[in-house]
Amino acid sequence: MNRQNPAVETISIVGVGQMGGSIGMAALAQGLAQEVIGVTRREQAIEQALARGAITRGTTVLAEGVADADLVVVCTPVALIADCVLQAAGSCRAGTLITDAGSTKAAIVAAVAGRLPAGVEFIGSHPLAGNHESGVAAARADLYQGQMVLLTPDATSTPTLTNKLERFWRRLGAHVRTIDPVTHDQVLAVTSHLLHVVAPAVAATTPREYLDCVAGGWRDGTRVAAADCALWEEILLSNAGPTIAAIDAFSEVVEQFRTALTNGDRDQLAQLLRKGKQHRDALGS
Amino acid sequence: MNRQNPAVETISIVGVGQMGGSIGMAALAQGLAQEVIGVTRREQAIEQALARGAITRGTTVLAEGVADADLVVVCTPVALIADCVLQAAGSCRAGTLITDAGSTKAAIVAAVAGRLPAGVEFIGSHPLAGNHESGVAAARADLYQGQMVLLTPDATSTPTLTNKLERFWRRLGAHVRTIDPVTHDQVLAVTSHLLHVVAPAVAATTPREYLDCVAGGWRDGTRVAAADCALWEEILLSNAGPTIAAIDAFSEVVEQFRTALTNGDRDQLAQLLRKGKQHRDALGS
Repeated sequence: MNRQNPAVETISIVGVGQMGGSIGMAALAQGLAQEVIGVTRREQAIEQALARGAITRGTTVLAEGVADADLVVVCTPVALIADCVLQAAGSCRAGTLITDAGSTKAAIVAAVAGRLPAGVEFIGSHPLAGNHESGVAAARADLYQGQMVLLTPDATSTPTLTNKLERFWRRLGAHVRTIDPVTHDQVLAVTSHLLHVVAPAVAATTPREYLDCVAGGWRDGTRVAAADCALWEEILLSNAGPTIAAIDAFSEVVEQFRTALTNGDRDQLAQLLRKGKQHRDALGS
Repeated sequence: MNRQNPAVETISIVGVGQMGGSIGMAALAQGLAQEVIGVTRREQAIEQALARGAITRGTTVLAEGVADADLVVVCTPVALIADCVLQAAGSCRAGTLITDAGSTKAAIVAAVAGRLPAGVEFIGSHPLAGNHESGVAAARADLYQGQMVLLTPDATSTPTLTNKLERFWRRLGAHVRTIDPVTHDQVLAVTSHLLHVVAPAVAATTPREYLDCVAGGWRDGTRVAAADCALWEEILLSNAGPTIAAIDAFSEVVEQFRTALTNGDRDQLAQLLRKGKQHRDALGS
């Protein structure tokens, strides 16, 4: 196999929204695929995806859309991913690799494990990309450029397929790390899902008549509260345990702030602010 | 008085950092002042402010810097503002208006009330501008463009001076609203100060080894945790009561999220996410 030209000739993307559409646009731009087949629920979505240059053809029939694929990327909402992977797998030819773009991994990997036909393999992907926008209109060929994609192969994954998937995301411009699915969900509870509790909680706490007095910190800090509610309802429910643990760890720090303010404890307040700043500064802007 | 050319011929700015420096740059750019005198603690800061075009001359001696001013803007850290206003007032000529750029107002207004020499007046300003950067290097002539500035005149304020201050900020490009100082602090506790607890708390909750797995929501949501710790320590302590009330209201909503997740209560979770989104969407991006 030529390392520069991974043998992905036909990619099927199931669910062509911001994430899936961006994969199609980037794969075509990079010459990674000759065909990008979009599988959507509505005919209208096929037209939009074609118009955006995200796919080369489309269908509303999953079995038809994945039959010729070398790589299937399931980009549906997270609650539908496992079923969709299993259903797609039944129509794939041997040798097909299936991945996804879901924000949680443990439940999906567990639901799929041991239930795929011989010769078809699933390895989870989670691109840490996308924003509060949604739909193929928000897709961009450079969405994954410089972003992290986490892969969750397990002991049953074929190393050459893991490598192939890794190269695929790298060709889209992403950094790639492998991580086990349970650890993935614990990490993401803190680095992503917690914010989808905190941001809407700040926004909901703020009376509407205060909105013309918000500072930049509020504007930045609540941005993800604008995200699609149905999508995040599913993600939070599918990772409830780790997210609750993250909320508890966070609430404990908030309580320390509250105590420091109540006691006028300047040292404790300074220490809390410094720790937050250190972690934030370690990331960069 | 010409409405287009308020009689501000000499402005003194006490503390020439991001906020003060931007006032000087904007006032000079708008032809609002012939002289902008910077009062700083260190000689070196005068050089930097001159080099940035934020002032026309500088001094480290407060009494000297404010003696000729039509308008004095105190842009020191919040804990120093009241003392600085009182000290400056003693050296001002009659007719001088003093304002500030502090993030809290009730304590400052109360500390100054009834203690100024005849003919010198203080009216509080709080520009909702600036970001986590600091120092005159981060000053910009357009920092206040399109931003909100809250003024806190009280019953003793001379209406013509309130109008003059209002026009001053408008000429710098800002929107202006008047609000009483106690309400100001309650509103800002929610729209600003709460975020300076929440953002560092999220950042501190996140182990450093998770930082290469952060999503855009984390990056946006923790941005203000990078702000100057000493500055925010003072602001939070000077508005402890309202900030604690804001923390409590926020924590109650977070607890509702936690309960919804614990019970797998899809309806409750959806309702919480929707309320947050409604408030955020009402603001715009």
